Amino acid sequence: MSDSIVFSLADDAVATISINEPDTRNALSLAVMKELVDTVAEVGRRTDVRAVILSTAGHVFSSGHDLKEIRGAGLESQQETFAVCSELMQLIKSIPQPVIAQVQGVATAAGCQLVASCDLAVAAQSARFATPGVKIGLFCSTPMVALSRAVPAKTAMRMLLTGDFLSAGDALTFGLVSDVVADDELEMATAQLARKVASASSATVAIGKAAFYEQRDLPVAQAYARMSEVMAHNAVAADAQEGIDAFLGRRQPQWQHRG
Amino acid sequence: MSDSIVFSLADDAVATISINEPDTRNALSLAVMKELVDTVAEVGRRTDVRAVILSTAGHVFSSGHDLKEIRGAGLESQQETFAVCSELMQLIKSIPQPVIAQVQGVATAAGCQLVASCDLAVAAQSARFATPGVKIGLFCSTPMVALSRAVPAKTAMRMLLTGDFLSAGDALTFGLVSDVVADDELEMATAQLARKVASASSATVAIGKAAFYEQRDLPVAQAYARMSEVMAHNAVAADAQEGIDAFLGRRQPQWQHRG
Amino acid sequence: MSDSIVFSLADDAVATISINEPDTRNALSLAVMKELVDTVAEVGRRTDVRAVILSTAGHVFSSGHDLKEIRGAGLESQQETFAVCSELMQLIKSIPQPVIAQVQGVATAAGCQLVASCDLAVAAQSARFATPGVKIGLFCSTPMVALSRAVPAKTAMRMLLTGDFLSAGDALTFGLVSDVVADDELEMATAQLARKVASASSATVAIGKAAFYEQRDLPVAQAYARMSEVMAHNAVAADAQEGIDAFLGRRQPQWQHRG
Repeated sequence: MSDSIVFSLADDAVATISINEPDTRNALSLAVMKELVDTVAEVGRRTDVRAVILSTAGHVFSSGHDLKEIRGAGLESQQETFAVCSELMQLIKSIPQPVIAQVQGVATAAGCQLVASCDLAVAAQSARFATPGVKIGLFCSTPMVALSRAVPAKTAMRMLLTGDFLSAGDALTFGLVSDVVADDELEMATAQLARKVASASSATVAIGKAAFYEQRDLPVAQAYARMSEVMAHNAVAADAQEGIDAFLGRRQPQWQHRG
Repeated sequence: MSDSIVFSLADDAVATISINEPDTRNALSLAVMKELVDTVAEVGRRTDVRAVILSTAGHVFSSGHDLKEIRGAGLESQQETFAVCSELMQLIKSIPQPVIAQVQGVATAAGCQLVASCDLAVAAQSARFATPGVKIGLFCSTPMVALSRAVPAKTAMRMLLTGDFLSAGDALTFGLVSDVVADDELEMATAQLARKVASASSATVAIGKAAFYEQRDLPVAQAYARMSEVMAHNAVAADAQEGIDAFLGRRQPQWQHRG
Repeated sequence: MSDSIVFSLADDAVATISINEPDTRNALSLAVMKELVDTVAEVGRRTDVRAVILSTAGHVFSSGHDLKEIRGAGLESQQETFAVCSELMQLIKSIPQPVIAQVQGVATAAGCQLVASCDLAVAAQSARFATPGVKIGLFCSTPMVALSRAVPAKTAMRMLLTGDFLSAGDALTFGLVSDVVADDELEMATAQLARKVASASSATVAIGKAAFYEQRDLPVAQAYARMSEVMAHNAVAADAQEGIDAFLGRRQPQWQHRG
């Protein structure tokens, strides 16, 4: 692993994956995205990680793709860029642990998509979000897959057609982020949220996260049929029986977690 | 019908189905859910009911499933619980009359799902909503079918992954409820909303409610093709012609209602 | 073209299509809808138009269908009305240029649907929105296709089941409109937004608008596969390469636009 991506694991089972490219405003170059894919995939396989914070270094969360790479590149190269980007965004949703974006400064284009793709996102009060590709002739078509599934259609369209910024407050109202906190509380609040998520049974959380995204794309009746099965099997699993027992006995549960 | 479910019908064609289990905080035990299914289905067949209020007794709207039943039960028993629960939630959407949840106190897990599953929901200002299954090792996987179709994805995920409460105000902003009123106006406001719904042609409302949920799961072009047919047939029906005639003649319509 | 629909084109490539039937509160009669279909389709073929404002004359944005036409009409006639209406609403989304509704007064029934169907919508602070068909026995079943894809389900259901108005502020919060401005700034603000949209490459915008609606109805994995291709091809196109080059060179781009 190069210095572009910094991984750390705290003793509360919270891992942090940090993009450390402040000089490029944490641009998602092909190399950075490939490293992120490798790192996220590896974290997904670790059973000692129960929640993941995705952060970046410096004043800008991420400026999106590296335009110097896209300028002059051929079709195959572009296809690789957007295929790897799409793989990364979907991988975040497919690993068993919840991923929480920690957002300072601006998050633009694929940087905004990264926020939309995380399961949760904590934004600093001064953070801002945009999909400004339209201004440079390159519509944010892959970012809008995540964006349009996070916010109302007209909110997404306004961002996509104008490139204008959305404030952190509006990002909360419209569903792009799950939390907004004072700028100087960003790290603490994100860590606190991550610890809360990590305090649950990782076996249960893994079931629930996968089930959430599975049922979203199904018609309601099919979603209920699948989720009834998921929940029945969850209910007979060790951590559910322990959790219910602890709750009824007014004691703290002892999780077995994901094996 | 036992004392668990209390049915009443006012002379304005508004029925109230009330869960009367304050001692268990209106837990949705298998027995209670089966009675609810029977009651809701029966109400759906009655042509003298044009709107339904779903309320509960005591200080808590509903605490969700009865954990004492889930503790120690085998897979088949769990499957029955979640199958009946899923049947109940879908039945509420499938009966011809609109169902309005009247929510005081807290609505958690399947209790929160019940609110999400009603067509409309009036919440007291102090009401709160949560899907806290994750805390006891049992992810709210069936509740999230309804929840994730009511609120933005990150709002749902935050509730599901933390178990934290959503305030009534946030529930309104994010779409979980349709109305928030002062605590001491809850019953009056819900009754008023129900009477407004019941003042419409029940034949028209039945067409519209069924059509709403049908078209939601269709691609846009198919949805328009179906709804054009639905609306054309609605337009030639007696109550539409009467309603238009009354409107153009500036008089009150006389509905034939659902036959 | 009759006087019902007024078309104009400003020298900033912003076209305005205006419904000029203030005496009927801009009712969407069959004749008006057919003219709108023709006009919108024609505008869609023009390469000298890069953004479209949809406005109406008088104090009411639009009152929806012409009830005098619907009263007494046979099934075939009704089918034609709703088929043409559905064609119009989908056509707005299918032309290459973004369409911006400019909304004053009230927008009801198919008039509200028209707002929901535009890509963007600027509302005057005093504007109000309703789908009151239920009050006249004719449920707003085609309007709800657009409405339910714009706002949360309970917001839509409340509007559909009660016919109550949504304020401009709530329309913004819930996603029915993209902008709310002071009444006396409505025209200026809409024109400004349209000019911003028109300042982008029309080739890029055409790609993005079509892609937005295409990907919305796809499961996530399919949406990413398609959008990766769309974006890769967009990236090698002339206007993207020019836009990136201009951005990196800190100069204004010179678009080739849609050919």
